[in-house]
Amino acid sequence: MSLQEMLGTHPKPMMDTQTLAECVDACFECAATCTACADACLAEDMVAELRACIRTDLDCADVCSATGRILARQTEPDTTLLRAQLEACAAACGVCASSCEAHKDMHEHCRICAEACRRCEASCRKVIAALS
Amino acid sequence: MSLQEMLGTHPKPMMDTQTLAECVDACFECAATCTACADACLAEDMVAELRACIRTDLDCADVCSATGRILARQTEPDTTLLRAQLEACAAACGVCASSCEAHKDMHEHCRICAEACRRCEASCRKVIAALS
Amino acid sequence: MSLQEMLGTHPKPMMDTQTLAECVDACFECAATCTACADACLAEDMVAELRACIRTDLDCADVCSATGRILARQTEPDTTLLRAQLEACAAACGVCASSCEAHKDMHEHCRICAEACRRCEASCRKVIAALS
Amino acid sequence: MSLQEMLGTHPKPMMDTQTLAECVDACFECAATCTACADACLAEDMVAELRACIRTDLDCADVCSATGRILARQTEPDTTLLRAQLEACAAACGVCASSCEAHKDMHEHCRICAEACRRCEASCRKVIAALS
Repeated sequence: MSLQEMLGTHPKPMMDTQTLAECVDACFECAATCTACADACLAEDMVAELRACIRTDLDCADVCSATGRILARQTEPDTTLLRAQLEACAAACGVCASSCEAHKDMHEHCRICAEACRRCEASCRKVIAALS
Repeated sequence: MSLQEMLGTHPKPMMDTQTLAECVDACFECAATCTACADACLAEDMVAELRACIRTDLDCADVCSATGRILARQTEPDTTLLRAQLEACAAACGVCASSCEAHKDMHEHCRICAEACRRCEASCRKVIAALS
Repeated sequence: MSLQEMLGTHPKPMMDTQTLAECVDACFECAATCTACADACLAEDMVAELRACIRTDLDCADVCSATGRILARQTEPDTTLLRAQLEACAAACGVCASSCEAHKDMHEHCRICAEACRRCEASCRKVIAALS
Repeated sequence: MSLQEMLGTHPKPMMDTQTLAECVDACFECAATCTACADACLAEDMVAELRACIRTDLDCADVCSATGRILARQTEPDTTLLRAQLEACAAACGVCASSCEAHKDMHEHCRICAEACRRCEASCRKVIAALS
C-alpha cells in the first residue's frame, strides 16, 4: 500500500499506479523469497540434490531485483528495455517456479517460493500487456 | 507475513523469526521506496536543487538491497559481517532520512521516503541488539 | 584475466571459458560505467536535459549487474532463463548506448559509457550465439 | 583503466581518481569472483562441507556490489554513509577471505577468491584513510 502511495506521488506517472505497484511489490517479494529459499535449500541435509534449485533461486532473485528497481522508475521510460526485462523476469520466475514445484511436498520453503514466483510471473505479464 | 512464514521454514532458524522478517521487509521496502524517490526527484522541475537527495536515495537503495539479501540468509551466519552491514544500513537510512526530511513539505515522495528510511533504521538497530 | 582463471576452476564448466569471462567482465564493467555516467550527468549544469540519459543509465546498470551475476554461475544452467536475460541485457545496452551517443560530443562520460554499452551488447549476443 | 578514465570525467571529482577507481574495480571484481566461488563450491562433491563458504561468498558479493556502486558516485558524497559502507565491505571481505583461505589448498576457486577479497579489503581501507 505504501509503495502504491509512493509511486502515485511521481510528477508524471507512467501507467496505472496500482498495476505498477503490484508488480514492483511482487518483484521485491520474489527476490527476498528466492534468496531465502536458496539459503534454506543450502541448509538441508540433501543439499547435494538441491543444486539446480539453489542455482535457479539465486538467478531468479537477481532478475527480480533488477526488474523491481526498473519498474520503480517512471521518468522517461523506454518500452523496449522495459518489455525485454519483464519478459526475462517472467521467464526466470517460470523456470524457478517449475524447479521449486518439483519438490514442494518435501520442502515447505520450495512450496512458498514457487507461489511467489508464479505471482511475480503473472504480475510481469500483466504489466507487459498494459505497456502494449 | 509471507516472508515471515518463509523464514520460519529454515531448517536452522538464526534468531526470532518475526524480528528478522520485519527487518528484511523494511530493507526491501526501503530499497524500493528510495529507488522511486530518486526517480520522482529526477522528474521534478527543480531537479538541480535535488542532487544531494537523489544521490543519497540511490546509495540508500543499494545498501538496503544488500542488507535485505544478507538478512534473508540464516545458514552459518557470521555476526561480524552481519553487524557491520547492519550498522552501515542504519547509517545510510539515517543520512537519507535527514536529506529527505529537509524538503518533505515540498515533496510528498520525500516525506514517504523519510518514513521508510526511519522504519528501516530502527529495524536494523533492533536486529543489532538481538545479535548481541 | 583473473576472472577467466576463476571461471576455469569450476568443476563442470558450462561453455568456452574465454567467451563467458569476457561477457561477465563486460557486464560488470558496463554496470560500473553506467552508474558513474548517471552520477556524472546528475552533476552537470544541464541536468534537467539529461533526465532520459540518467534513467536509462540506472536501468542499464541494474540489468547488467543481474546478467553478470547470472553468467558467473555455471552450475546446472537453464538456457531459457539465460537466453531471456541476455536478450534483455543486449536490449538495455542498445537503448542506453543510443541515449548516450546522442550527446557524446558534449559529455565525455556519455562517449565512454556508450562504448561500454556497445561492448556489452556485442558480448551478450556472442554468448546467445554460443548457447544455441 | 577505462573506469579510471570514466571517473575522471566527473564535473566535480570527489577524491584522487586513481585510488577511487582501484577500489571500484576491486569491489566489482570481488563481487564477480565471490559469485563464481559460491557457484563452484555448490558444484563440488563435498558441497555439504562448504555451506559456510557458500553463504559468506554470497554475502560478500552483495556487500561488494553495493559498495562498488556507491563509490562509482561522486556527486554530493556523504562521508558518514561512505565510511560505514566501506567498513562493512572491509569486514565482509575479511570474513570471506578467512573462510576461503581455510580450504584454499583443496579448491583453487577458494584460493583465487581469498586473494580478490584481500585486495578489496585493502582497497577499502585505503579509501577510508583518504576520506579522513
